[in-house]
Amino acid sequence: MAAPMLQPETLCQVGFVVHDVKATAKKYAEAFGFPVPRIIETPGYDKAKTTVEGKPSEATAKLAFFQTGQLVVELIEPDKTPSVWRDFLDKNGEGVHHIAFRVQDTKATEAALAAEGMPVLQQGLFVDGSGMYTYVDSAAQLGVIVELLEVFKNI
Amino acid sequence: MAAPMLQPETLCQVGFVVHDVKATAKKYAEAFGFPVPRIIETPGYDKAKTTVEGKPSEATAKLAFFQTGQLVVELIEPDKTPSVWRDFLDKNGEGVHHIAFRVQDTKATEAALAAEGMPVLQQGLFVDGSGMYTYVDSAAQLGVIVELLEVFKNI
Repeated sequence: MAAPMLQPETLCQVGFVVHDVKATAKKYAEAFGFPVPRIIETPGYDKAKTTVEGKPSEATAKLAFFQTGQLVVELIEPDKTPSVWRDFLDKNGEGVHHIAFRVQDTKATEAALAAEGMPVLQQGLFVDGSGMYTYVDSAAQLGVIVELLEVFKNI
Repeated sequence: MAAPMLQPETLCQVGFVVHDVKATAKKYAEAFGFPVPRIIETPGYDKAKTTVEGKPSEATAKLAFFQTGQLVVELIEPDKTPSVWRDFLDKNGEGVHHIAFRVQDTKATEAALAAEGMPVLQQGLFVDGSGMYTYVDSAAQLGVIVELLEVFKNI
């Protein structure tokens, strides 16, 4: 491989899937001394442009975020529609679902990972449309799903 | 709860259990452009003073570490002896096993977590004896096992 596909210092998030984001967020808030964060609901395909294995999807999730220095902890409660989150929760139960890296160019990183046998699982826009996320199927190779996070520059 | 039990900015490590640490470390090295790290074998009870649910244990593991800014990624290949690592691998397969926080006082943090229903699962010394680790049973409440890492000051 010519150049590294991911920059280690861009590791920026650890994401958990949970059954009840409100209840788990309360536990985190207690353990870490934070106020309980706002729960954010992601929109459907119309706004989020979510694709699961390349096909448009209405999958949504309720999210909560905590800042911990370099790392954001993300709690995700998926709805019942098939998605990377729902699949993980059904198969593995609650736990760490992904680690996320900031990228400058999703398409280039996605292509480099796909060439190494790590294809895209799910993609979509941020809730406010300010960027996009991409989950890649890296579990067999890296032991975890990797998420690419790109913040759009021209908005 | 009076004071927070954990300081979010002390989040310092994400640990994965894997079947073959050498093979996975090679994949990480390729993906991130690192040299393949040295594999470290942890010693038995005599040196590591490992306890699993309070009882002395000969459980060991092979470890590899990557630095990623604030976060260290730890890859763990457990031996066959029961341990928090082996149990996770047998039940869940490869994946994120724990998130770790630096603490100043293991006993105090351990007591605070135990009082909230998160008792100690496993404890032991670092490979070089320079500190200690403690896994607590926080999976039901926080969706993941929490590890406390204390570096001893007077050595």
